[in-house]
Amino acid sequence: MRALEERPPHASVRDLGVRARAAARVLRSLPTARKVAVLQAIAAELRGRRAEILAANARDVEAALAAGLPEPMVARLRLDGGALEGVAADVEAVSRLPDPVGESTPEDRRPSGIRVSQRRVPLGVLGVIYESRPNVTVDVAALALMSGNAVILRGGRETVHSNAALEGAIHAALAAQGLPSGAVQVIRDPARERMLELLKLDDLVDAIIPRGGAGLHRFCVEHATVPVIVGGIGVVHIYLDESFTREPADVQMAAELIRNAKVQKPSACNALDTLLIHDRALGALPEVARALIEGGVTLLADARSQASLDSAGLPAQPAQDSDYGQEFLALTASLRVVSGLDEALDFIAAHGNHTDVILTRDGAQAARFVQDVDSAAVMVNASPRFNDGAQLGLGAEVAISTQKLHARGPMGLRELTTTKWVVMGDGQIRG
Amino acid sequence: MRALEERPPHASVRDLGVRARAAARVLRSLPTARKVAVLQAIAAELRGRRAEILAANARDVEAALAAGLPEPMVARLRLDGGALEGVAADVEAVSRLPDPVGESTPEDRRPSGIRVSQRRVPLGVLGVIYESRPNVTVDVAALALMSGNAVILRGGRETVHSNAALEGAIHAALAAQGLPSGAVQVIRDPARERMLELLKLDDLVDAIIPRGGAGLHRFCVEHATVPVIVGGIGVVHIYLDESFTREPADVQMAAELIRNAKVQKPSACNALDTLLIHDRALGALPEVARALIEGGVTLLADARSQASLDSAGLPAQPAQDSDYGQEFLALTASLRVVSGLDEALDFIAAHGNHTDVILTRDGAQAARFVQDVDSAAVMVNASPRFNDGAQLGLGAEVAISTQKLHARGPMGLRELTTTKWVVMGDGQIRG
Repeated sequence: MRALEERPPHASVRDLGVRARAAARVLRSLPTARKVAVLQAIAAELRGRRAEILAANARDVEAALAAGLPEPMVARLRLDGGALEGVAADVEAVSRLPDPVGESTPEDRRPSGIRVSQRRVPLGVLGVIYESRPNVTVDVAALALMSGNAVILRGGRETVHSNAALEGAIHAALAAQGLPSGAVQVIRDPARERMLELLKLDDLVDAIIPRGGAGLHRFCVEHATVPVIVGGIGVVHIYLDESFTREPADVQMAAELIRNAKVQKPSACNALDTLLIHDRALGALPEVARALIEGGVTLLADARSQASLDSAGLPAQPAQDSDYGQEFLALTASLRVVSGLDEALDFIAAHGNHTDVILTRDGAQAARFVQDVDSAAVMVNASPRFNDGAQLGLGAEVAISTQKLHARGPMGLRELTTTKWVVMGDGQIRG
Repeated sequence: MRALEERPPHASVRDLGVRARAAARVLRSLPTARKVAVLQAIAAELRGRRAEILAANARDVEAALAAGLPEPMVARLRLDGGALEGVAADVEAVSRLPDPVGESTPEDRRPSGIRVSQRRVPLGVLGVIYESRPNVTVDVAALALMSGNAVILRGGRETVHSNAALEGAIHAALAAQGLPSGAVQVIRDPARERMLELLKLDDLVDAIIPRGGAGLHRFCVEHATVPVIVGGIGVVHIYLDESFTREPADVQMAAELIRNAKVQKPSACNALDTLLIHDRALGALPEVARALIEGGVTLLADARSQASLDSAGLPAQPAQDSDYGQEFLALTASLRVVSGLDEALDFIAAHGNHTDVILTRDGAQAARFVQDVDSAAVMVNASPRFNDGAQLGLGAEVAISTQKLHARGPMGLRELTTTKWVVMGDGQIRG
């Protein structure tokens, strides 16, 4: 292993892959206690290197400002002492999660006499591609290591100094624990060609996880030969059923929940995009719309909801067809009146895939909604903002998958593992 | 739904995808009893249309012979009354398997008050690409329907008449059960461009499953934007440990097991490719080699095993580097002497991924082998031929996956499903 410890000064992405695969072989048999120790060591290094990391981050921020990057992007890039302490605390939180590696199904004795089981093992080598948040570098490294995986990280070009400093802290912790630095490696060259090399490294990398906008996901799907776990666009619907608006208390609850769904974090993928309203629930629309408008939301309304808002003196813009099935990631939401559950379900079948909510007091309607809607998360009378690793009980998440293969919804430690079949025999042969 | 029932005479692959997605929405909520009824109806149609199906198959066989196709390919293509009855019986066997759809994890009450669970649901629309065996058309359709999925099938150009007749039987059964024909559709145009269209239909198809040689898998991985479940090449190793050769009875068992691994079905992906022998187990090699040679196997030996065979007067050819990590799919196996478990594990780490076996009487060696080897199936003292859906208890398999995402090893009904999160609340919002 020693020969692999020194990273070549101009390592190619393939070199990183070879080093990652060698490290993965070490990581996959690491006892939980040693993984916990590595994560604790990373948290300590982050705290001990605070000045160095913040100085590196300041260089990135300075360069971003000089390059005229938009303010929200610079904000995502910026680290301060409090944020860095939060990153270190998150690493410690991951170290306290249950380790799924080594779990096994009960042994099943087959008619042939062999005893078979499935044992949970790490995926192996992950490639994670993301944009300007340097905290992702550490979050993903912690989740990968705790689940026994090596990881190759490709961050944005605007975080190159921050990521180098964070990688330095992680490597110091790995070295202190006697583990190879190939366990966590950052691609230092931000050229798009390097990302393409990573996407095609299918003999060395087991999965690519993009974290970013629809364009990044599409790029990965189009070019990767490594399997990609796609988050993709996440369109979120709430369907407001007539039954939910018979009581004033329910109308108030609907207004608060819908406001929470849109306003609490408009940039999140689990924020509301389209509100569907039963035509017999239209009486509740003004109160709901008022809650959204007070939260700063621009409403894009179809003709019937527009008429209802007009009569209440509330502002809305006319919705275009393209405003449905659209992820806004901003303080904008589209409205549409439907004739009932059937139309809502057809609409969601055509446009949904991420998180879809029904607000109803009718158990039969709720059951039909939950059965028919085929999205990563289906909810009854709860804010779509709960589609989140911590809220659903996974502890932390590396991404939210909207594809169906392998993992659907938030991906925690377990979703970074796979299984292998273990067969125990005493000389059995197949007849 | 009625408008979708009539397949357009020149349906594009995209048309098939749209019809499949509509059918998938029906299939995903179908009760188990109705899926069982469809499969029973398919078996009855296959029996009732026996003459028609065999006549269509005879046309394919005639064309294959006229085109000078190699005899093994013609043999794979040929159906007779017995084979067709076997296909019908297999469909009935699938109908008796437990239905994984609708299973749910226990409901977990989160601190926010929401109750969360994960419910098992069908993948949706599958695309399955395969070569000349017409029985695959029916096997895959049965597994897809029983797991609540729609499927688009793309068989070989040499089976076009057989597949049309089989699709006719399946459609008659679907119609009799009031289900849309979009549930099972065969791409009739064998042009490669149609396969490419299927591989890129990522807005309509949830997974591509290729069944065939390494070239087909590579083509799918290179071109698909739909996620692909890869079987890929399957290299199978057996490591013969010194401890297993101390007793004559064990040497005999090793010889029988290794012969079974290679000879019982040499064309299978779980047949032996490379035998690794501990150098202190070389005394057992002649008996093992004799069993293989009597089974018609050509041995490709490294220098040390060649010397052992020479002294016993047994024939072998010198192995080239390329004879290791090579899937033979024929009566050929490579031999290599190693200095012990460490070297065997390093060798398998470099070349293995499918099924790897240790023959040992030493529990510690067995445990290390099972822990370190990262293949779809790892076995102790059992034939690698047991890496098979029926043998491991899955009942039937659509393919054997050697990738790590989603499913690893044989893929039965459960591996054709995914989960969705179900969240039940009473107006909870995120704080």
